Formats: sequence, structure tokens, C-alpha cells
Amino acid sequence: MADHSVTIDLNSDLGEGFGRWRLGDDEALLSIVTSANVACGFHAGDPTIMRTVCELAAARGVAIGAQVSYRDLGGFGRRFIDVPPEELSDDIVYQLGSLDAFARLAGTRVRYVKPHGALYNAIVHHEEQAAAVVAAVRAYDRALPVLGLPGSAWLRRAESAGLATVTEGFADRAYTPQGTLVPRGTPGAVLHDPEEVAERCLRMARGEPIEAVDGTPLIVRAESICVHGDSPDAVRMARRVSESLKAGGIELSSFTREAA
Amino acid sequence: MADHSVTIDLNSDLGEGFGRWRLGDDEALLSIVTSANVACGFHAGDPTIMRTVCELAAARGVAIGAQVSYRDLGGFGRRFIDVPPEELSDDIVYQLGSLDAFARLAGTRVRYVKPHGALYNAIVHHEEQAAAVVAAVRAYDRALPVLGLPGSAWLRRAESAGLATVTEGFADRAYTPQGTLVPRGTPGAVLHDPEEVAERCLRMARGEPIEAVDGTPLIVRAESICVHGDSPDAVRMARRVSESLKAGGIELSSFTREAA
Amino acid sequence: MADHSVTIDLNSDLGEGFGRWRLGDDEALLSIVTSANVACGFHAGDPTIMRTVCELAAARGVAIGAQVSYRDLGGFGRRFIDVPPEELSDDIVYQLGSLDAFARLAGTRVRYVKPHGALYNAIVHHEEQAAAVVAAVRAYDRALPVLGLPGSAWLRRAESAGLATVTEGFADRAYTPQGTLVPRGTPGAVLHDPEEVAERCLRMARGEPIEAVDGTPLIVRAESICVHGDSPDAVRMARRVSESLKAGGIELSSFTREAA
Amino acid sequence: MADHSVTIDLNSDLGEGFGRWRLGDDEALLSIVTSANVACGFHAGDPTIMRTVCELAAARGVAIGAQVSYRDLGGFGRRFIDVPPEELSDDIVYQLGSLDAFARLAGTRVRYVKPHGALYNAIVHHEEQAAAVVAAVRAYDRALPVLGLPGSAWLRRAESAGLATVTEGFADRAYTPQGTLVPRGTPGAVLHDPEEVAERCLRMARGEPIEAVDGTPLIVRAESICVHGDSPDAVRMARRVSESLKAGGIELSSFTREAA
Repeated sequence: MADHSVTIDLNSDLGEGFGRWRLGDDEALLSIVTSANVACGFHAGDPTIMRTVCELAAARGVAIGAQVSYRDLGGFGRRFIDVPPEELSDDIVYQLGSLDAFARLAGTRVRYVKPHGALYNAIVHHEEQAAAVVAAVRAYDRALPVLGLPGSAWLRRAESAGLATVTEGFADRAYTPQGTLVPRGTPGAVLHDPEEVAERCLRMARGEPIEAVDGTPLIVRAESICVHGDSPDAVRMARRVSESLKAGGIELSSFTREAA
Repeated sequence: MADHSVTIDLNSDLGEGFGRWRLGDDEALLSIVTSANVACGFHAGDPTIMRTVCELAAARGVAIGAQVSYRDLGGFGRRFIDVPPEELSDDIVYQLGSLDAFARLAGTRVRYVKPHGALYNAIVHHEEQAAAVVAAVRAYDRALPVLGLPGSAWLRRAESAGLATVTEGFADRAYTPQGTLVPRGTPGAVLHDPEEVAERCLRMARGEPIEAVDGTPLIVRAESICVHGDSPDAVRMARRVSESLKAGGIELSSFTREAA
Repeated sequence: MADHSVTIDLNSDLGEGFGRWRLGDDEALLSIVTSANVACGFHAGDPTIMRTVCELAAARGVAIGAQVSYRDLGGFGRRFIDVPPEELSDDIVYQLGSLDAFARLAGTRVRYVKPHGALYNAIVHHEEQAAAVVAAVRAYDRALPVLGLPGSAWLRRAESAGLATVTEGFADRAYTPQGTLVPRGTPGAVLHDPEEVAERCLRMARGEPIEAVDGTPLIVRAESICVHGDSPDAVRMARRVSESLKAGGIELSSFTREAA
Repeated sequence: MADHSVTIDLNSDLGEGFGRWRLGDDEALLSIVTSANVACGFHAGDPTIMRTVCELAAARGVAIGAQVSYRDLGGFGRRFIDVPPEELSDDIVYQLGSLDAFARLAGTRVRYVKPHGALYNAIVHHEEQAAAVVAAVRAYDRALPVLGLPGSAWLRRAESAGLATVTEGFADRAYTPQGTLVPRGTPGAVLHDPEEVAERCLRMARGEPIEAVDGTPLIVRAESICVHGDSPDAVRMARRVSESLKAGGIELSSFTREAA
């Protein structure tokens, strides 16, 4: 959807606290990113946090996306759950509706959908769950774009169902030569040098190859780049990525057609 | 809002299961009532139940109302919780948004709001919580009518805020001479004779006095009558009330301006 | 552990309500079975239900077992969750401790462990999760026997770890010629004829072959037989099984060494 | 229970994270305090956190106490809930049993009970809930001391029921001339100067009067002093209190009769 040569979106996970707990610096991130993946209460995000993040995002013109998840507060949505597809679809609609309420109150709307954690990973290949999430988005609002990994069942099925799809790259993750992520836990899976990360993001944005984990040149299709913000270092890295992209002549802009 | 002489609404609590558990016979009730108070996930009601009830209600032309509650699955929303008003307001918006998503998918919308259990009772007199729920409804959709006890802080504040209000009577509950409900647990608080209950409902619908618990004649303002459905007996009583009203020339009709 | 020729245990799932919801007729079941698999709050079972069931079981001399589960109220523990083994182990210890508190208050103790639902099924083959549950039981009390499917990773690992194991047969389920259960959903997976079910249980108790789903004779090793009780029909079937066993000269008795 | 002239206990809330979230620096606190109020899963504290804190506390000889709470993850146990007394009692037993399981695994036991948040505040005056918590502790283990505010219904009823009671003072909170806490939110309710706080604690430990909020001298009976640890500043203040007490010749020691 974006013009790859000059424009890219930066997205980040936001509103991932619950009750007394907070995670990351939402305000700092909202001054950096163009798209906010807002937790909807199933892995994180209580109603007060959701309202607050929606208000802040709307005030800064950051697009609000629904970071939908398995129902799993205890596991932060990071554990695969074998939810029957129809129930999963209902869980997604529930989350979309609740976040959209806060987006509307803030004068905007939910602009896209990005699944979280174990659900994100599952629907790269789990056809039934991928289809269930697609069905939910389509039923809720067929104008909502969906964000995901290039080549995933999720994007393929979304496209077949007539949804707009947005490919995503990861700023600080190593890639295999096949273009999938090196699993967390593998040595070298996560990159920590802000300069290296910023340089990779610039290459992704320009459509130039990066180095896969074995040194192979790899072109990562990415209309949006995911940056993290759950530590002071992470916020600094996100800021460095943003500055580097701008310095490289790349415009940061949400992929959504309407302003947030 | 209703024409008391000829029309009345029958409402009932629906969708009050969760996961593996069910409560009451939703299908039987939906063939009797004109308004369905649908649980929104905080005291009962998971996404799959919410979708199913919305589909059934829409198919039968029964108006869908949001039965909003404290977050209290373990206590079924029947325990007062001293939620700070702003958080309570956010909790209500969250529930409204999630139910509305399923109502839209079923081709209709949430048509009114009726708080559940301890929240219903609290906002008869708890001014801050009453104001918080009013603020949430108003922010979400100021065209939504609210259902409640005549004389409650809830209806008074809703009216002041410009919301349409609908007064409610209870089919099977004894009233004090002052028009409040005799508390559950007090002997005689709940009526069990279907003929007596049906007769009282007919009187309420006609604007005629019923007998308070001490025999005093009492006029109960009720544009809607609440019937229960969580047991086979309750369903039979609800059906008896419906038949009696129709036989008495009362038209059963939702108080909402649009068809569901 | 039991003498197969004359004694067998009957177990059933109990206390599977939550808050306002109930499932099955605990009191009826407790007059039939010799072992009660009590839900511990993760898939069902709130503290008040747990106390009540423990009191009733203790009064009837029925052994109390911990029906441990994934943390999944919304899915009733019937959905596989990919919980990391160490966390799963902690979840099991937590549940054992909480149920044991109520068992102690009722004058007895938790006497055995039987995992519930998706966890039961997963640890038939999922080695890491099987090991995690075994580790939890062993750490909590190495004198606790564990109940499970003959041939499962769960029983094999429990035995290796020095725990006493008890094999279980299912009264109303069809078996493959290999001795595994025909999956629910497959036609014929669940048996409904009380006479047929009672006859099979008698054969299992006597160590005689039953018919597998394809007619092959199959010997099911079962020191305990699981009966269900979540419907009036199920209670009647459980009672029929009990009567048939007694009429056939089989003594019903818990496999635990001490009286409950 | 302690010898006031030379010995005092320092207690702090620990294990108050959940899943992905953490609160405070448990390890730092465990090197300062003599008693650890460990969250039991109802307002905070998942099984893995509970196990970890119990292991750390046991290794350092810090006594483990059950920080029991209303079931309220969303509100962190800080909202009064009108739980019926019998259910509240069951909730407390459940929490005691689960924490005790982890304490046993760490080679020790739960040594005392200190209610958390809104429950702590409620049972200062709410007689039915105070009685319910007392009944739960007594039923679970009548040798468990309970920690609370001098003059509270909670300590009075515990004493009548034969439980050992331990009075508690607050390091960083202002007191009214009547010896109750100045409510949070009132200006001056929380003290921030480490020197002033340390000096007050030394006076409490010596049985000398401190200044109430209006300057009146006030003797606070405190066999244990509560310090907080949910921020780097709080940890520094806790350490300052500890050093000041030791420098003043006060021995820091748990009030429990046995070593942890």
C-alpha cells in the first residue's frame, strides 16, 4: 500500500499494562511511531489504559491498530492456545469492538489489525486459526487492513478474502535466508546495536537487501517496521531507527488511507 | 417513552453463561420478551455466547440491550465493588463496544443500557458511580436510552445528561409502600404464584395500583417489566405474564424507536 | 494397586461449577463413586465449591483427588495450551496446595492427582508437559498416586519418578484396537446404552476383554473406572454401572491406601 | 510477641507481579526485611512468582507471610468488594493453601497472615469481613499469627479467637492524633524524607512517641514496621530504615517463634 521508495510506517506495541502494572513507555513511543498496536484486554490492556492510549494516539495523529490476542493474561498471550476457530473468531470480534469504542471516543477509529504474540506466530502457518482471524476482521469491517509477516497464511488468506494487507519487517530481529525470523532463544536472534538496527531498517525501507543470519543477502518486503519499546534501551533504539530513516530521506507515515 | 395505556416492553437477562456454563433458556425467553439484556463478559457472557444471543435476538426482532456490570465473574456481578468512577466509566465503554460489535454483525445495534446486579443496585443511590455510568453511555452514544428503577440516582442523572430514560417494574418482586423493592432474603420478597404475578403486571401496564407488601395501594411507573428466565418455572411465569398482558389488550413492544 | 478380581474404584469429575454456575449433580455422584476428582479453580471450581465438595466427600468417605488443569476458565480447560514446563509445574503445585487446604479442613487430605481435559490428553504424549506435572506432584507429596491412561507418557514418567500409578478405563467411551480412546466427534465415540456400558465396566473390572470399536477383543487395564455426571442421564448411567459391578461381585473401593 | 526494647520486625509486600509484569525489586527487599508478605494470586502473584519469592525468602531466612486479598487482579486488590463473609473465608483458605504449598517446597511454611489493600482497610472496621478472615486463618492453622493495625476489628477478633496478633506501624505514613493513618490523597499523608522516616521508625521501635500530623506526641504500638519497595527510592528508604534501626541498637528479627 505504501510507496516503498519514500514512505514507511513504524509500528509498536502499546498499552500493554494491566491494572496496577505498566510495560514500556507509551508516551515516548507515541512520539516516534506512526502506528500503535493497542492491546485489547485479552493478553494486556485494561479499559482505562485502552482509553488513555487511544486519546494520546489520536492527539498525536498516530493510527490505532487492534493488537488482538488469545485470552491469556497469565501468559501475556505468548502461549499457543488451541482455540476452536469459531470461538477464536468471536474473541477477535469482541476485542475489535471494545477497542473501537475507545478509538471512537477519541475521535478516530481502529485503522488496522495486528495479532499479538503466540497468535501472530500461530497464524503464520495454522490455516484454521488464520482463517478464523480473517473471518472476524472481514465480518467486523472489511475496510480494515491487516498487518503481518510476508508469506504467512494470515496475509495470504486475508488477501484472498479481499482485505488489504500490509507486510511487516522487524527492526531488531535476525532473519533466516528464507525470510523467516530466527527464533527467539537462538543465539543472535535479537540485534542489540542501534546503529546496525537503524542501518537495516533504512535498507528495508529502500527495498535493498539486508544480511540474513548466514550472510546471504535478503530482501525483506516491509511496508511497516516493528520497533519495541518495553525498556529505556528499546525506546532509544526506536528513536534511532526513526532518525536514521528520516535522515535517509524516508518519510514516516501510517499506511492507512485516512489520517488517524 | 411508551404509551402506557396500550403498550409495554418485557425485558429479561440473557446470555448469562460463560464458557462451558449456561444459565437459563435463552431461546425460550427470546420468544417471549421484546428486549434482551445481554451480558457483556464482565459478570457473564463470553464472546461466543454474545454472538449467538445477538443473532437469535436479531432474528426475532428483539431489541438488544447492554447488561453492563462490575468486572466480577466469580461473584456474577452481585457484589458491590468500590470502583473509582473514571475506571467504572471505562469498564462500561469497553462492554458497550464489545456487545455492539456482535449486534452490528447481526445486522442491528445495541439499543439500550441496563446495568446488572450489584451495579444496578448501587446506582440507585451511589451518586458517583451513577454519574460514571451515565458519562460512559453519553460518551458512547447519546441516543441510547437507559433502563432503571423510577426515582434512582441513575435515571435522574441520565435525564439531566440528556439521555432518554425508561422506567422498569419487576414482575415477581414485592414492593415497599415507598416503591422500592423488598430486599431479597426478606420473607415474601419474591412472588411465586404465576397468576398473581401476571395480574400485577397487567395492573402495572395499565397504570393501575398494585398492592405493596403491607397492602398499601402503589402505582409503579413501568415502561418495561423485567421477567426472569433462569429456571423452567421462571420461563413458564414469563410466558404467563406475556399471555396475560396480551389477553388484557396490552401490546408488547420494545421501547426503542427503531425496530431492532 | 487394586486387586483386579474383586475390587475397583469409580471416579468422577466433581465441583466443576464456578461462581453462579453449576455443572452436574455433585451430591448424587458422591453417593455413587469412591473417588472424587475435584476441580481446583483453573478450569472450574471456586473456593466455596471446593470447600463444599470436600466436606461432602469426606462425610461420605469418598477419596478426594486433585483435578488439576491449565488456567483456562473460558475454555473449561479443554484447549491445549503450550505452557512452558516450569510454569506448568508451578500451576500444578498451586492447585494442589489450594485443594489440600480444603481437604485438611474437612479432616482428610488430597489422596491422588488426575489431570483434566486438554492437559489429560496432552500428557498422554507430550513428554515435557508430562514431566512437568510429574515433577510438581513429586515435589508436593511423593506419596500421592496419579491416575491416567495406561501406556501414557504421564503414567510412564510418574512410575519412573517413583510415584504410584493407577490405570483408568472409561465407562462410556469406545476404544480403538490399540487401546486408545476413539476421539470425541467420531461417530460411535461415546456409548449411550446404560446396559452396554454397565456390562463393559463389569468386564473391565474382571480383567475380561471388551470389544474395541472394530469388534476386536481388547483387554483394558483399569484399576479405576471414570463415570460422568453432568446430566441426569449421566447420573443414571453411573448408578447403573455401580449396581452392575456390585451385582457382579465386584467391591467398589478407593485405590488409596488410607481411608479418605 | 517481640521484646519491644531491643527487637523489631520489618515487613514488606513482595511477589506483586503477574505473568509478564513485575512490581518492585523483590531481591533487594529480601536482603533488608525480616518478613515477606507474599501475594497469593488474587490481587497479584502468579504461581511461578510465588515459588520464586518463597525460594529466595527461605534462602535468606526471611519469614513468609500470606498477603491475602480480594479476588481483583484488575484493581490490584485496592477496591472494597462486598464479598459475603463465608465466601471471603473460603477465598482466604484457598490463598493460604496455595502459598503454603510453595513455602513447603522451599523447606519452610507460611508463618503469618497480613491482608492486602482494600481488605486490610475494610477489616479495620468491617466486623463481618474481619470475622471471616479470622475464621479462615483459625480453621487453616490456629498457630498462625496475624499482622494488623492496633485497635482494628481484625486484631481484636483474632485475639478473641485465640490467634496471636502482631501490631504494625507504617514507616512512611502520617498518623492522626488518634493513631489511625492519614488517608492517602490527603496532603502530607506520605512521608518522603528518608532521614525523617528512619528517625520515626527508631522511635516506634523504642516505644517512644512520634509526632502525629498535628504535632501531638503519639505512641504507635508496632511489633513490625511496614516498608515499601515498589520503586528505587522506596528500596533506598527501606535500607535507610534498616540501617538506622541497627545503628540505634535495635535487633531486626521476625516475630515468628521459629526460624523461617
